[in-house]
Amino acid sequence: MSELSPGGQRLLDVATRVFYAEGIRATGVDTLVALAGVSKPTLYAQFGSKENLVAAVLDRRRASRQAALHDFLDEKRAAPPAGRLLAVFDWLAQGHGREGFRGCPFTNAAVELPDPGHPARAVISAYKGALRDTLTGLAREAGLAEPEDLGYALLMLIDGANARVVVDGDRTAILKAKAAAARMIGHTDG
Amino acid sequence: MSELSPGGQRLLDVATRVFYAEGIRATGVDTLVALAGVSKPTLYAQFGSKENLVAAVLDRRRASRQAALHDFLDEKRAAPPAGRLLAVFDWLAQGHGREGFRGCPFTNAAVELPDPGHPARAVISAYKGALRDTLTGLAREAGLAEPEDLGYALLMLIDGANARVVVDGDRTAILKAKAAAARMIGHTDG
Repeated sequence: MSELSPGGQRLLDVATRVFYAEGIRATGVDTLVALAGVSKPTLYAQFGSKENLVAAVLDRRRASRQAALHDFLDEKRAAPPAGRLLAVFDWLAQGHGREGFRGCPFTNAAVELPDPGHPARAVISAYKGALRDTLTGLAREAGLAEPEDLGYALLMLIDGANARVVVDGDRTAILKAKAAAARMIGHTDG
Repeated sequence: MSELSPGGQRLLDVATRVFYAEGIRATGVDTLVALAGVSKPTLYAQFGSKENLVAAVLDRRRASRQAALHDFLDEKRAAPPAGRLLAVFDWLAQGHGREGFRGCPFTNAAVELPDPGHPARAVISAYKGALRDTLTGLAREAGLAEPEDLGYALLMLIDGANARVVVDGDRTAILKAKAAAARMIGHTDG
Protein backbone atom coordinates (compact mmCIF):
# COMPACT_ATOMS: atom_id res chain seq x y z
CA MET A 1 0.00 0.00 0.00
CA SER A 2 3.06 2.30 -0.01
CA GLU A 3 2.08 3.61 -3.44
CA LEU A 4 -1.24 5.06 -2.23
CA SER A 5 -1.88 8.78 -2.62
CA PRO A 6 -3.01 10.74 0.48
CA GLY A 7 -6.59 10.46 -0.85
CA GLY A 8 -6.19 6.70 -1.32
CA GLN A 9 -4.90 6.43 2.25
CA ARG A 10 -7.90 8.35 3.58
CA LEU A 11 -10.21 6.07 1.60
CA LEU A 12 -8.54 3.02 3.15
CA ASP A 13 -8.93 4.46 6.66
CA VAL A 14 -12.56 5.49 6.13
CA ALA A 15 -13.46 2.16 4.53
CA THR A 16 -11.82 0.24 7.39
CA ARG A 17 -14.02 2.05 9.89
CA VAL A 18 -17.31 2.16 7.97
CA PHE A 19 -17.23 -1.35 6.44
CA TYR A 20 -16.79 -2.75 9.94
CA ALA A 21 -19.34 -0.57 11.74
CA GLU A 22 -22.09 -0.50 9.10
CA GLY A 23 -21.33 -3.50 6.91
CA ILE A 24 -19.68 -3.85 3.51
CA ARG A 25 -22.84 -4.24 1.43
CA ALA A 26 -24.54 -1.44 3.34
CA THR A 27 -21.76 1.01 2.44
CA GLY A 28 -21.84 2.41 -1.07
CA VAL A 29 -18.97 3.91 -3.02
CA ASP A 30 -20.68 7.32 -2.88
CA THR A 31 -20.62 7.28 0.92
CA LEU A 32 -16.95 6.29 1.02
CA VAL A 33 -15.72 8.98 -1.36
CA ALA A 34 -17.81 11.62 0.43
CA LEU A 35 -16.43 10.66 3.84
CA ALA A 36 -12.85 10.51 2.53
CA GLY A 37 -13.22 13.80 0.67
CA VAL A 38 -12.04 12.35 -2.63
CA SER A 39 -13.60 11.90 -6.05
CA LYS A 40 -14.95 8.61 -7.33
CA PRO A 41 -12.23 8.41 -10.05
CA THR A 42 -9.67 8.56 -7.21
CA LEU A 43 -11.16 5.41 -5.70
CA TYR A 44 -10.98 3.56 -9.02
CA ALA A 45 -7.48 4.87 -9.82
CA GLN A 46 -6.17 3.80 -6.43
CA PHE A 47 -7.98 0.48 -5.93
CA GLY A 48 -9.58 -0.48 -9.24
CA SER A 49 -12.91 -1.48 -7.69
CA LYS A 50 -14.87 -1.57 -4.44
CA GLU A 51 -14.06 -5.31 -4.25
CA ASN A 52 -10.34 -4.57 -4.30
CA LEU A 53 -10.77 -1.84 -1.70
CA VAL A 54 -12.48 -4.39 0.58
CA ALA A 55 -9.56 -6.79 0.05
CA ALA A 56 -7.03 -4.00 0.73
CA VAL A 57 -8.80 -3.03 3.98
CA LEU A 58 -8.74 -6.62 5.21
CA ASP A 59 -5.19 -7.33 4.06
CA ARG A 60 -3.82 -4.32 5.93
CA ARG A 61 -5.69 -5.47 9.02
CA ARG A 62 -4.46 -9.05 8.56
CA ALA A 63 -0.84 -7.90 8.49
CA SER A 64 -1.17 -5.60 11.52
CA ARG A 65 -3.06 -8.19 13.59
CA GLN A 66 -0.57 -10.94 12.81
CA ALA A 67 2.34 -8.65 13.74
CA ALA A 68 0.61 -7.61 16.98
CA LEU A 69 -0.06 -11.23 18.00
CA HIS A 70 3.53 -12.15 17.20
CA ASP A 71 4.81 -9.32 19.44
CA PHE A 72 2.35 -10.22 22.21
CA LEU A 73 3.48 -13.84 22.25
CA ASP A 74 7.12 -12.80 22.04
CA GLU A 75 6.70 -10.81 25.26
CA LYS A 76 5.27 -13.95 26.88
CA ARG A 77 8.04 -16.27 25.67
CA ALA A 78 9.13 -17.01 29.27
CA ALA A 79 5.62 -18.18 30.28
CA PRO A 80 4.67 -21.89 30.40
CA PRO A 81 3.50 -23.05 26.93
CA ALA A 82 -0.08 -23.88 28.02
CA GLY A 83 -0.29 -20.40 29.54
CA ARG A 84 0.88 -18.84 26.27
CA LEU A 85 -1.77 -20.80 24.40
CA LEU A 86 -4.50 -19.48 26.68
CA ALA A 87 -2.98 -15.97 26.58
CA VAL A 88 -4.09 -15.73 22.94
CA PHE A 89 -7.59 -15.33 24.39
CA ASP A 90 -6.38 -12.45 26.58
CA TRP A 91 -4.92 -10.78 23.51
CA LEU A 92 -8.25 -11.17 21.70
CA ALA A 93 -10.06 -9.86 24.78
CA GLN A 94 -8.35 -6.49 24.28
CA GLY A 95 -10.24 -6.17 20.98
CA HIS A 96 -13.50 -7.45 22.46
CA GLY A 97 -13.29 -4.71 25.10
CA ARG A 98 -12.94 -1.90 22.59
CA GLU A 99 -15.85 0.50 21.95
CA GLY A 100 -17.73 -0.43 18.80
CA PHE A 101 -16.45 -4.00 18.76
CA ARG A 102 -18.93 -6.18 16.89
CA GLY A 103 -17.15 -9.42 16.18
CA CYS A 104 -14.35 -10.49 13.87
CA PRO A 105 -14.02 -8.23 10.80
CA PHE A 106 -12.79 -11.19 8.75
CA THR A 107 -15.63 -13.58 9.60
CA ASN A 108 -18.17 -10.77 9.25
CA ALA A 109 -16.82 -9.95 5.79
CA ALA A 110 -17.02 -13.62 4.76
CA VAL A 111 -20.71 -13.65 5.73
CA GLU A 112 -21.34 -10.64 3.52
CA LEU A 113 -19.31 -11.88 0.55
CA PRO A 114 -20.62 -15.34 -0.43
CA ASP A 115 -18.94 -15.25 -3.86
CA PRO A 116 -15.86 -17.51 -3.55
CA GLY A 117 -14.19 -15.46 -6.29
CA HIS A 118 -14.29 -12.20 -4.32
CA PRO A 119 -10.70 -10.95 -3.86
CA ALA A 120 -11.22 -10.56 -0.10
CA ARG A 121 -11.93 -14.29 0.38
CA ALA A 122 -8.26 -15.33 0.10
CA VAL A 123 -7.27 -12.66 2.64
CA ILE A 124 -9.92 -13.88 5.09
CA SER A 125 -8.78 -17.51 4.74
CA ALA A 126 -5.15 -16.46 5.17
CA TYR A 127 -5.89 -14.61 8.42
CA LYS A 128 -7.83 -17.51 9.93
CA GLY A 129 -5.29 -20.06 8.68
CA ALA A 130 -2.44 -18.14 10.30
CA LEU A 131 -4.34 -17.89 13.60
CA ARG A 132 -5.07 -21.59 13.52
CA ASP A 133 -1.40 -22.35 12.78
CA THR A 134 -0.34 -20.20 15.74
CA LEU A 135 -2.75 -22.05 18.04
CA THR A 136 -1.60 -25.43 16.73
CA GLY A 137 2.05 -24.45 17.19
CA LEU A 138 1.45 -23.35 20.78
CA ALA A 139 -0.49 -26.56 21.49
CA ARG A 140 2.41 -28.57 20.10
CA GLU A 141 4.95 -26.65 22.23
CA ALA A 142 2.77 -27.37 25.25
CA GLY A 143 2.93 -31.08 24.47
CA LEU A 144 -0.84 -31.37 24.15
CA ALA A 145 -2.41 -34.33 22.37
CA GLU A 146 -3.56 -33.88 18.78
CA PRO A 147 -2.35 -30.27 18.43
CA GLU A 148 -3.86 -29.79 14.94
CA ASP A 149 -7.32 -30.82 16.09
CA LEU A 150 -6.92 -28.66 19.16
CA GLY A 151 -5.85 -25.63 17.10
CA TYR A 152 -8.98 -26.09 14.98
CA ALA A 153 -11.18 -26.47 18.08
CA LEU A 154 -9.76 -23.34 19.69
CA LEU A 155 -10.34 -21.39 16.48
CA MET A 156 -13.98 -22.51 16.66
CA LEU A 157 -14.24 -21.29 20.27
CA ILE A 158 -12.77 -17.94 19.20
CA ASP A 159 -15.19 -17.54 16.31
CA GLY A 160 -18.00 -18.73 18.57
CA ALA A 161 -17.16 -15.96 21.02
CA ASN A 162 -17.27 -13.48 18.14
CA ALA A 163 -20.73 -14.78 17.23
CA ARG A 164 -21.87 -14.28 20.84
CA VAL A 165 -20.85 -10.63 20.58
CA VAL A 166 -22.56 -10.23 17.21
CA VAL A 167 -25.81 -11.82 18.39
CA ASP A 168 -26.11 -10.70 22.01
CA GLY A 169 -23.33 -8.16 22.55
CA ASP A 170 -21.70 -10.30 25.27
CA ARG A 171 -18.28 -8.69 25.70
CA THR A 172 -17.26 -11.38 28.22
CA ALA A 173 -17.75 -14.18 25.66
CA ILE A 174 -14.04 -14.36 24.82
CA LEU A 175 -13.18 -14.98 28.48
CA LYS A 176 -15.84 -17.72 28.58
CA ALA A 177 -14.15 -19.16 25.49
CA LYS A 178 -10.84 -19.04 27.38
CA ALA A 179 -12.40 -20.95 30.28
CA ALA A 180 -13.80 -23.53 27.84
CA ALA A 181 -10.35 -23.83 26.23
CA ALA A 182 -8.78 -24.38 29.64
CA ARG A 183 -11.39 -27.07 30.32
CA MET A 184 -10.58 -28.68 26.96
CA ILE A 185 -6.84 -28.84 27.59
CA GLY A 186 -7.23 -29.76 31.25
CA HIS A 187 -5.52 -26.57 32.42
CA THR A 188 -6.96 -25.87 35.90
CA ASP A 189 -5.59 -22.38 36.57
CA GLY A 190 -6.38 -20.98 33.12
CA MET B 1 -48.33 -15.97 9.35
CA SER B 2 -51.68 -17.72 8.77
CA GLU B 3 -53.16 -14.45 7.53
CA LEU B 4 -50.74 -14.19 4.58
CA SER B 5 -52.13 -14.08 1.05
CA PRO B 6 -50.72 -16.53 -1.53
CA GLY B 7 -48.51 -13.69 -2.80
CA GLY B 8 -47.31 -12.96 0.73
CA GLN B 9 -46.52 -16.64 1.19
CA ARG B 10 -44.48 -16.69 -2.03
CA LEU B 11 -42.61 -13.60 -0.88
CA LEU B 12 -41.77 -15.30 2.41
CA ASP B 13 -40.50 -18.40 0.58
CA VAL B 14 -38.46 -16.41 -1.96
CA ALA B 15 -37.00 -14.14 0.74
CA THR B 16 -36.03 -17.16 2.87
CA ARG B 17 -34.03 -18.59 0.00
CA VAL B 18 -32.47 -15.41 -1.41
CA PHE B 19 -31.65 -13.63 1.87
CA TYR B 20 -29.71 -16.72 2.93
CA ALA B 21 -27.94 -17.42 -0.35
CA GLU B 22 -27.12 -13.84 -1.41
CA GLY B 23 -27.34 -11.86 1.81
CA ILE B 24 -30.01 -9.58 3.24
CA ARG B 25 -28.41 -6.25 2.33
CA ALA B 26 -27.50 -7.55 -1.12
CA THR B 27 -31.15 -8.35 -1.89
CA GLY B 28 -33.36 -5.42 -2.78
CA VAL B 29 -37.13 -5.23 -2.57
CA ASP B 30 -37.32 -5.02 -6.38
CA THR B 31 -35.59 -8.39 -6.71
CA LEU B 32 -37.88 -10.01 -4.15
CA VAL B 33 -41.14 -8.86 -5.70
CA ALA B 34 -39.91 -9.83 -9.18
CA LEU B 35 -38.94 -13.33 -8.04
CA ALA B 36 -42.20 -13.81 -6.12
CA GLY B 37 -44.28 -12.44 -8.99
CA VAL B 38 -46.07 -9.90 -6.82
CA SER B 39 -46.26 -6.11 -6.78
CA LYS B 40 -44.34 -3.92 -4.38
CA PRO B 41 -47.56 -2.76 -2.65
CA THR B 42 -48.25 -6.44 -1.87
CA LEU B 43 -44.98 -6.65 0.03
CA TYR B 44 -45.82 -3.57 2.08
CA ALA B 45 -49.44 -4.64 2.65
CA GLN B 46 -48.37 -8.09 3.85
CA PHE B 47 -45.25 -7.24 5.87
CA GLY B 48 -45.13 -3.47 6.31
CA SER B 49 -41.43 -3.17 5.49
CA LYS B 50 -38.39 -5.11 4.30
CA GLU B 51 -37.20 -5.14 7.94
CA ASN B 52 -40.39 -6.90 9.05
CA LEU B 53 -40.10 -9.37 6.15
CA VAL B 54 -36.59 -10.24 7.37
CA ALA B 55 -37.95 -10.78 10.88
CA ALA B 56 -40.83 -12.92 9.55
CA VAL B 57 -38.43 -15.09 7.53
CA LEU B 58 -36.25 -15.72 10.57
CA ASP B 59 -39.15 -16.24 12.96
CA ARG B 60 -40.70 -18.92 10.76
CA ARG B 61 -37.31 -20.62 10.57
CA ARG B 62 -36.83 -20.29 14.34
CA ALA B 63 -40.14 -22.04 15.01
CA SER B 64 -39.52 -24.86 12.53
CA ARG B 65 -35.94 -25.48 13.69
CA GLN B 66 -36.95 -25.56 17.36
CA ALA B 67 -39.76 -28.01 16.59
CA ALA B 68 -37.41 -30.20 14.54
CA LEU B 69 -34.78 -30.32 17.30
CA HIS B 70 -37.47 -31.13 19.85
CA ASP B 71 -38.68 -34.05 17.72
CA PHE B 72 -35.11 -35.25 17.08
CA LEU B 73 -34.29 -35.31 20.80
CA ASP B 74 -37.62 -36.92 21.59
CA GLU B 75 -36.72 -39.83 19.29
CA LYS B 76 -33.46 -40.18 21.22
CA ARG B 77 -35.06 -40.07 24.66
CA ALA B 78 -33.88 -43.62 25.47
CA ALA B 79 -30.21 -42.75 24.75
CA PRO B 80 -27.75 -41.91 27.56
CA PRO B 81 -27.93 -38.18 28.41
CA ALA B 82 -24.33 -37.37 27.36
CA GLY B 83 -25.04 -39.09 24.04
CA ARG B 84 -28.18 -36.98 23.57
CA LEU B 85 -26.15 -33.84 24.25
CA LEU B 86 -23.62 -34.78 21.58
CA ALA B 87 -26.41 -35.87 19.22
CA VAL B 88 -27.38 -32.19 18.87
CA PHE B 89 -24.24 -31.91 16.73
CA ASP B 90 -25.46 -34.80 14.53
CA TRP B 91 -28.74 -32.99 14.08
CA LEU B 92 -26.89 -29.82 13.05
CA ALA B 93 -24.66 -31.88 10.74
CA GLN B 94 -27.76 -32.67 8.63
CA GLY B 95 -28.00 -28.97 7.80
CA HIS B 96 -24.25 -28.60 7.26
CA GLY B 97 -24.43 -31.38 4.67
CA ARG B 98 -27.15 -29.72 2.61
CA GLU B 99 -26.33 -28.15 -0.75
CA GLY B 100 -25.95 -24.40 -0.48
CA PHE B 101 -25.29 -24.46 3.26
CA ARG B 102 -23.28 -21.40 4.21
CA GLY B 103 -23.49 -21.13 7.97
CA CYS B 104 -26.20 -20.23 10.45
CA PRO B 105 -28.90 -17.99 8.95
CA PHE B 106 -29.46 -16.35 12.34
CA THR B 107 -25.81 -15.48 13.03
CA ASN B 108 -25.32 -14.39 9.42
CA ALA B 109 -28.34 -12.08 9.69
CA ALA B 110 -26.98 -10.57 12.93
CA VAL B 111 -23.72 -9.74 11.14
CA GLU B 112 -25.65 -7.91 8.44
CA LEU B 113 -28.00 -6.06 10.79
CA PRO B 114 -25.90 -4.14 13.33
CA ASP B 115 -28.80 -1.90 14.40
CA PRO B 116 -29.95 -3.28 17.78
CA GLY B 117 -33.44 -1.93 17.04
CA HIS B 118 -33.92 -4.03 13.91
CA PRO B 119 -37.01 -6.26 14.43
CA ALA B 120 -35.03 -9.38 13.46
CA ARG B 121 -32.58 -8.97 16.34
CA ALA B 122 -34.99 -10.26 18.98
CA VAL B 123 -35.81 -13.31 16.84
CA ILE B 124 -32.10 -14.09 16.42
CA SER B 125 -31.47 -13.80 20.16
CA ALA B 126 -34.50 -15.97 20.89
CA TYR B 127 -33.28 -18.75 18.59
CA LYS B 128 -29.78 -18.80 20.06
CA GLY B 129 -31.10 -18.52 23.61
CA ALA B 130 -33.40 -21.51 23.09
CA LEU B 131 -30.55 -23.57 21.63
CA ARG B 132 -28.34 -22.67 24.56
CA ASP B 133 -31.12 -23.59 27.00
CA THR B 134 -31.52 -26.97 25.29
CA LEU B 135 -27.78 -27.64 25.55
CA THR B 136 -27.72 -26.56 29.21
CA GLY B 137 -30.72 -28.77 30.00
CA LEU B 138 -29.10 -31.79 28.36
CA ALA B 139 -25.83 -31.10 30.21
CA ARG B 140 -27.78 -30.93 33.47
CA GLU B 141 -29.59 -34.23 32.73
CA ALA B 142 -26.18 -35.78 32.03
CA GLY B 143 -25.00 -34.66 35.47
CA LEU B 144 -22.14 -32.62 33.99
CA ALA B 145 -20.42 -29.93 36.07
CA GLU B 146 -21.43 -26.30 35.51
CA PRO B 147 -24.15 -27.04 32.95
CA GLU B 148 -24.85 -23.36 32.18
CA ASP B 149 -21.22 -22.62 31.34
CA LEU B 150 -21.09 -25.81 29.32
CA GLY B 151 -24.24 -24.90 27.37
CA TYR B 152 -22.65 -21.55 26.54
CA ALA B 153 -19.35 -23.21 25.53
CA LEU B 154 -21.12 -25.71 23.27
CA LEU B 155 -23.06 -22.89 21.62
CA MET B 156 -19.70 -21.23 20.89
CA LEU B 157 -18.39 -24.45 19.31
CA ILE B 158 -21.52 -24.64 17.16
CA ASP B 159 -21.20 -21.04 16.00
CA GLY B 160 -17.49 -21.57 15.49
CA ALA B 161 -18.26 -24.50 13.20
CA ASN B 162 -20.64 -22.25 11.28
CA ALA B 163 -17.85 -19.69 10.90
CA ARG B 164 -15.52 -22.41 9.55
CA VAL B 165 -18.11 -23.14 6.84
CA VAL B 166 -18.54 -19.45 6.04
CA VAL B 167 -14.81 -18.79 5.82
CA ASP B 168 -13.42 -21.99 4.31
CA GLY B 169 -16.42 -24.09 3.32
CA ASP B 170 -15.42 -26.92 5.66
CA ARG B 171 -18.56 -29.09 5.78
CA THR B 172 -16.93 -31.39 8.36
CA ALA B 173 -16.47 -28.56 10.86
CA ILE B 174 -19.59 -29.49 12.83
CA LEU B 175 -18.24 -33.01 13.40
CA LYS B 176 -14.94 -31.52 14.56
CA ALA B 177 -16.99 -29.38 16.94
CA LYS B 178 -18.69 -32.55 18.16
CA ALA B 179 -15.28 -34.14 18.82
CA ALA B 180 -14.18 -31.01 20.69
CA ALA B 181 -17.41 -31.12 22.73
CA ALA B 182 -16.75 -34.76 23.58
CA ARG B 183 -13.23 -33.80 24.66
CA MET B 184 -14.67 -31.00 26.79
CA ILE B 185 -17.16 -33.22 28.60
CA GLY B 186 -14.73 -36.15 28.86
CA HIS B 187 -16.93 -38.38 26.72
CA THR B 188 -14.57 -40.86 25.07
CA ASP B 189 -16.85 -42.57 22.57
CA GLY B 190 -18.49 -39.36 21.28
